[in-house]
Amino acid sequence: MTEQKNIRINVELIRDWAQNCLQQAGAATELAQAMAENLVAADLMGFRTHGLMRLRYNLTCLQDGSSRANGQVKVLSQRAAVQLWDADLLSGLYVMPKAVDAAMTMARQCGTGTVVVKRAQHVAALAVYLEQATAQGMLVQMMCATPGQQVVAPYGAKTAWFSPNPFAIGAPTQGHPILFDVSLSMTAAGKVRKAIAEGQPLPYPALITAEGNYTTDATTFLADPASVLAPLGGEQLGYKGSGLCLFSELWTLGLSQLGRHQEQAGLDANTVWVQVVDPAAFGDPEEFKHQAQAMVDGIRATTPIDPNRPVRVPGEGAFKIRQEQSKHGIEYSAALWRQLEKVALSTGIPLPNS
Amino acid sequence: MTEQKNIRINVELIRDWAQNCLQQAGAATELAQAMAENLVAADLMGFRTHGLMRLRYNLTCLQDGSSRANGQVKVLSQRAAVQLWDADLLSGLYVMPKAVDAAMTMARQCGTGTVVVKRAQHVAALAVYLEQATAQGMLVQMMCATPGQQVVAPYGAKTAWFSPNPFAIGAPTQGHPILFDVSLSMTAAGKVRKAIAEGQPLPYPALITAEGNYTTDATTFLADPASVLAPLGGEQLGYKGSGLCLFSELWTLGLSQLGRHQEQAGLDANTVWVQVVDPAAFGDPEEFKHQAQAMVDGIRATTPIDPNRPVRVPGEGAFKIRQEQSKHGIEYSAALWRQLEKVALSTGIPLPNS
Repeated sequence: MTEQKNIRINVELIRDWAQNCLQQAGAATELAQAMAENLVAADLMGFRTHGLMRLRYNLTCLQDGSSRANGQVKVLSQRAAVQLWDADLLSGLYVMPKAVDAAMTMARQCGTGTVVVKRAQHVAALAVYLEQATAQGMLVQMMCATPGQQVVAPYGAKTAWFSPNPFAIGAPTQGHPILFDVSLSMTAAGKVRKAIAEGQPLPYPALITAEGNYTTDATTFLADPASVLAPLGGEQLGYKGSGLCLFSELWTLGLSQLGRHQEQAGLDANTVWVQVVDPAAFGDPEEFKHQAQAMVDGIRATTPIDPNRPVRVPGEGAFKIRQEQSKHGIEYSAALWRQLEKVALSTGIPLPNS
Repeated sequence: MTEQKNIRINVELIRDWAQNCLQQAGAATELAQAMAENLVAADLMGFRTHGLMRLRYNLTCLQDGSSRANGQVKVLSQRAAVQLWDADLLSGLYVMPKAVDAAMTMARQCGTGTVVVKRAQHVAALAVYLEQATAQGMLVQMMCATPGQQVVAPYGAKTAWFSPNPFAIGAPTQGHPILFDVSLSMTAAGKVRKAIAEGQPLPYPALITAEGNYTTDATTFLADPASVLAPLGGEQLGYKGSGLCLFSELWTLGLSQLGRHQEQAGLDANTVWVQVVDPAAFGDPEEFKHQAQAMVDGIRATTPIDPNRPVRVPGEGAFKIRQEQSKHGIEYSAALWRQLEKVALSTGIPLPNS
C-alpha cells in the first residue's frame, strides 16, 4: 500500500456540502439538514462506518425512491406512554431525533416514553441520538433491527436468522454522559467487509462457516454459501447474545408487527425501539446524576489489567475524538475522500477545500 | 465420590413443607406461601442454584431480621407508567409477583408499566416471574443488581465493580412463551462455587485473577486477593458485557437512588427493574403472538452446527424439565436432600416421604 495522507476538513463546511448534495438528490431542506448533521455527527464521534462513508448510499436511496425525499411520519397507534410510528421510508437520520423528542414528552408525563418506529431508512449510528435525551437529564435506550436482513446465527446454528442488532444506552452524569452503542453479535458486517478490503483476518473468531466452524477468515463472508456472524458470547456463551438478539427483535419487529414473513426481501429499512426514562419520576434528578457519577468514578478507580490502559467508561473515547476533531477539523482517510470526490463530481457540487 | 441416588418428591408436598418451615421462622402465611412457591418454581424449571438450595439462607434471613417476616412494600414515588418501591427487606420471592402485577396494570393504561423495587431480600430466579406477564399476552423485561455486592470486573480491570447482574425477558407466542434469563457476566458466582465443590475447572476462562489473567481455575475465587468474574464477551469483547452491566446498574441502582456509596457493606438486598409492555398498545395482540411464533419457528428452522443438537429457543429447556418433574416429582440431589434433612431436624418439621 502506498502511504496516503488523511484529510482534515472543517466540520461546518463538510456538513453544508453533504446537505447540498442531499438536497440536490431531492431531499427537502429540513430532511437534508438532519441527514447531513447526523452522518457528520457519527464521523465526529469516530463511528466511521456510519458517517459520510454512507453518503453515496443515502443519495442513491433518495434517487431511486427507497428513501423518501419529504413527508411526515404517521402515528399508527398510541397510549399515554407509547407510540408506534410508520416512518414510511423517511431517513432514520431525520426521524430518530423526532422519536427521541416524542419519547421525552411522554416520559415527562408518565415516567417513561417509548416510540417504536418501523420503515425508517438508514438509522445509521444510534449513538448520535442519545445526547438529545441525556442533555435533558434523561436515560435513553435504543434497539434497532432490520426485517429485510438476516446475517446473525442463533446460537448453535450455522445459518442466519437475526439481522444486525445494534443496542445503545445513554445516561446523564455530573460530567459527560455515559454513551454505549454496540452490536449484539461478535462483530458487525461493516467490520468484516473492512477486513476483507484490507486483506486481514478478524482479530478473533466472529464468523461461523457453512461447515459450522468458528473462523477469523473474513473472506468466508463472501463464499457461497457464505459464513454468518456469531452472536455475542461466541462458541461457549453464544446463547446469551442469541437471547439478546431475540430481545431486540421481539421489542422492535414483534411490537411493530412488521416481521420477516411480510417484508419484501432486500428492503433495507430499520425498525427501532426508543425508550426514554425520566429519573425525576423516581426521585431527585440531581441525585440520579450523583449516583451515575459515582458509578463512573468507581469504574475508573478499578485496577487495570494493563497499568498503561486505564479502565474506560463507555462514551469517553467518542468524546475525546469529537473534541479533537471539532477543534482541528474532521479527519477523513484518503480513500474515503476520493469517494467523496466522486460524489462531488456526479453532483457537480465541489468539495470544500481541506 | 460414592454414587448417591437422587430423590424424587411430589411438588405439592415439598412446597408445603418449605412453607411450613418459613412460617415457623416467622414469615406471615401469605409471605411464606409465595417464598415456598417461587423457590420450588425455580427447582421445577431447573434453576437449581435459586431453588430450595437457598431455603436455609432464607430461614436464616428471617430469623436474624435481614428479611422481614411481614409487612407491605412502600410506594416511594410514581407517575402514570412508573413506580418506585421500597420493599423494606421483604423477600423478593414475595414482592416480585406484586411488582409484575402493578407493572401490568400500568401497561394496560399506558402501553408500558415499570416498577423499580429496592431493598428486596433474595429475589432468586427472575425466570419464575416472567410467565405472570406472558400469560396475559404481555412482554416483560427484568434486571437485578445488588448494591451491597461487587464481584464482576469492568472491562479492562482486574478488580470488581459490578454486582451479579441477571437479565431476563419473557414474551408470549402462539405456543410456549419465550423465557430468557442470563447473567451479564461470563459465569455466575454460584457456578464457580459449584466447580470448587466438585474440584473441577470452569469450562472456559470466566475469571480474572489478581494478576490480571483470564483463568478457568475456580479456586482462584477463594484466593486472597480473589479472582473476579469477567463481563460477558471476555478478553476480546468484554466491553460489551461491561456496558450491559452498567445499563443494568444505572436502571436499577441509579433510578432507585440506592447505590454503593450509601449501602451498608454486606447488605444482600436486591434492586430490580421490572418493565411490562402491552403489545395491544401497538396493534392486534394476536398478531404480536403470530410474529413471535414466526421468530421461534424461524430460529428452529436454522441449520444446526451439530445435526444431533437442534437449535433451541430460550425457555424450551426449562419447560421440558418442568413438565417432566411435574409429572414424576421434583428431583433433588442426595447432597441437597441431606441439607434439607438438616433443616427438617432444626425446625422439627419432618420432610415428606420421597
